[in-house]
Amino acid sequence: MTRFAFTIEFDGGPFYGLQRQKDGPSVQQSLEEAIHGVTGEDVRAHAAGRTDAGVHALAMRMHADIAKDIAPFRLMGAINAHLRPDPVAVTHCEVVPDDWHARFSCIGRSYLYRILNRRAGPTLDRGRVWHLAPDLDAGAMHAAAQVLVGRHDFTTFRSVHCQSDSPVKTLDRLDVTRNGEEVHIRAEARSFLHHQVRSMVGCLSLVGRGQWDTEKLGSALAARDRQQLGLNAPPEGLYFVRATYPGEQE
Amino acid sequence: MTRFAFTIEFDGGPFYGLQRQKDGPSVQQSLEEAIHGVTGEDVRAHAAGRTDAGVHALAMRMHADIAKDIAPFRLMGAINAHLRPDPVAVTHCEVVPDDWHARFSCIGRSYLYRILNRRAGPTLDRGRVWHLAPDLDAGAMHAAAQVLVGRHDFTTFRSVHCQSDSPVKTLDRLDVTRNGEEVHIRAEARSFLHHQVRSMVGCLSLVGRGQWDTEKLGSALAARDRQQLGLNAPPEGLYFVRATYPGEQE
Repeated sequence: MTRFAFTIEFDGGPFYGLQRQKDGPSVQQSLEEAIHGVTGEDVRAHAAGRTDAGVHALAMRMHADIAKDIAPFRLMGAINAHLRPDPVAVTHCEVVPDDWHARFSCIGRSYLYRILNRRAGPTLDRGRVWHLAPDLDAGAMHAAAQVLVGRHDFTTFRSVHCQSDSPVKTLDRLDVTRNGEEVHIRAEARSFLHHQVRSMVGCLSLVGRGQWDTEKLGSALAARDRQQLGLNAPPEGLYFVRATYPGEQE
Repeated sequence: MTRFAFTIEFDGGPFYGLQRQKDGPSVQQSLEEAIHGVTGEDVRAHAAGRTDAGVHALAMRMHADIAKDIAPFRLMGAINAHLRPDPVAVTHCEVVPDDWHARFSCIGRSYLYRILNRRAGPTLDRGRVWHLAPDLDAGAMHAAAQVLVGRHDFTTFRSVHCQSDSPVKTLDRLDVTRNGEEVHIRAEARSFLHHQVRSMVGCLSLVGRGQWDTEKLGSALAARDRQQLGLNAPPEGLYFVRATYPGEQE
């Protein structure tokens, strides 16, 4: 058996999430079926993160163990041929050591959240952004976001379905910038709670609209109470950007 | 009657083109019906360019004459509400003089063509880029493109369905740049022939693959013969970026 690591790009729109679901299509199922199409093997694919329905990925990392003797370059091309027409593509493929694990070896995860901030709704970017018409103050959002950076109990920003052992996480970065008609939020941490990024973005959007301020965001965090969450942002604006592993350049 | 100018963004994918068609949906029809929905008036909308089926627009300019007394800001919001769920949005609306014409007053048009140049096909950008797997030499493409800049008879790069009086046009700019996995071609001119950008891009892609060189491109231009066209690029990578009018900043 050889362990292959894959870099995966996908449009989360048509999927019920990354992880296999009983009731609908998943990225994991697409990849596993494509590998089966190439090798005839029933493999189990593991991912750096379990993104929700509608959430996209620019460079998710996954791995699977394959018995067939095949070069990574050829395997990638063959998997991509089998993945069509699903909106999933393998953009890189390499052989990794047997103890390399897409989820457990991962030491850094990075997300981007895109808000389209203009009166008119999205056209070309429909399903790719969260549309908010009221003017957002990105500077106020960035300033407030800094109270969330660091090691905290993020219970307020955690889904009731979260399976993490602990609500305590260290948020390394939470930057808000305006790029023309869009407001971008970038979040980096070793790991995140379920819905954490979307919950932080939802509350930051209230800051951007002037309904919340930094103090209110800080007290919501300190409350450690999901009832204090202002708003959970929708999945379609969220992108899994990058997973980092030991020895890889950030 | 008041003449309103609209800036329009649209996803060309579901349309048979910008201009009204007998057999399928068009951007013009969507806009005219939305205006009818707001005002009850049967208007005729005019556009800076008549883009083909599948071609997108970031900022097309259109105009229509409307009798109803309504402020541009309110008109824009009401039209956008009526445009849903079509992937068309009015991003700006203003009152213009009665002799301002979206097509005939336009003194500059600018297009962007996006090529996704990697082995894996597009996922999030499906229908938004032309996928070409072989490595393209963007530097060679840019160098060759300069033989097309200037005043020429572009018959080789003109659709047989082109309705322009003359095949002679002045191409002001044709730049090719690499942006990571994408190759971008930007074209600017007062006006273009039908299929001119897609035909130029198609031939430049042959240069990028090493199948054509600058000399071959120059001789194809000089031949003034549609049979000398190497390749017509598909519509989905093409974006109408901007129309310029007298008195407006470039």
